[in-house]
Amino acid sequence: VSKVVFDISVSLDGFITASGQTADEPLGTNGERLHEWAFKDERGQQALSEAMQRTGAVIVGRRTYDDSIRWWGADGPVGSARLPTFVLTHEAPASSPEGGVYTFVTDGIEAVVEQAKAAADGKNVGVGGGADTGQQLIRAGLVDEVILHVVPVLFGGGTRLFGELDEQLELEQIGADASERAAHLRYRVVR
Amino acid sequence: VSKVVFDISVSLDGFITASGQTADEPLGTNGERLHEWAFKDERGQQALSEAMQRTGAVIVGRRTYDDSIRWWGADGPVGSARLPTFVLTHEAPASSPEGGVYTFVTDGIEAVVEQAKAAADGKNVGVGGGADTGQQLIRAGLVDEVILHVVPVLFGGGTRLFGELDEQLELEQIGADASERAAHLRYRVVR
Repeated sequence: VSKVVFDISVSLDGFITASGQTADEPLGTNGERLHEWAFKDERGQQALSEAMQRTGAVIVGRRTYDDSIRWWGADGPVGSARLPTFVLTHEAPASSPEGGVYTFVTDGIEAVVEQAKAAADGKNVGVGGGADTGQQLIRAGLVDEVILHVVPVLFGGGTRLFGELDEQLELEQIGADASERAAHLRYRVVR
Repeated sequence: VSKVVFDISVSLDGFITASGQTADEPLGTNGERLHEWAFKDERGQQALSEAMQRTGAVIVGRRTYDDSIRWWGADGPVGSARLPTFVLTHEAPASSPEGGVYTFVTDGIEAVVEQAKAAADGKNVGVGGGADTGQQLIRAGLVDEVILHVVPVLFGGGTRLFGELDEQLELEQIGADASERAAHLRYRVVR
């Protein structure tokens, strides 16, 4: 069964970018610190590789797309896999890389999830980078699992993963372990 | 060797109280949710009990003292142990429970740590409730370990554990595991 998984790296103080974001450093000063576990930890690499195998499509927000397209090119966030990538946006951009994996979805979050699930062909749908997109989907009850990779650094500023919500939301903890450079916490969203 | 340990329960979205704080509910609406692990999880109870055994004195901020004194009475935050409790404040209160465990320290964070360490007699100093106090001590390099009990609930508002900092701060992850109702993350502060 296809699950929608919001999987993101976050500093211990809850930021998904540091302050000092620029076009060259979209994650802010030292922001790449958040992803070291995925490249340098043996267990991290393995977990990432397994998650990739299970993922058949990706949803990203428009800001993440705009910040990242110069690195992603036509192949999307997981280049080697060329996963179908659905960009939640108010308006499709004027141009996009030729032969690209991107579909621009302008009719809302239910639609983007529906299209991504269809494209995932039984595999999971990954919700990538973008706190707003992730939170919108969680609030709408469209996310099945939240996976946080908590990195032992205090950024002290930047983009917060979790902003203010109108109501409390219970999650069910389904796993917590550690690789050398991060704690990996897994939750099921309680409907 | 006596260590200074900042040990606190936090919602997954980084709040140490929920919104809706009142005198009767100083942790806000459903705020007691944060401490269920310590009373209902077998592993949680054991971990808490071991931490208590290792603790010889406690530091709290003035707001936590004011919010909690009606429950603590003369015996302090860990009633059965009557731990010497040092309250960081600008001015001592006009009155305090007779025979109480409290010392009011008005000459700053170095002084409060020094006095608490002396009273702890070789055991650890616990830094309890109070995001401001904890952050001040961390920033000043006076905390040796940070222990977070991350509870699977999104509060969506309340008091944030980590506010804005002027600089980034690296921690060293020294442990991460889970009981049924919380993930328990341990860090050494890198000086």
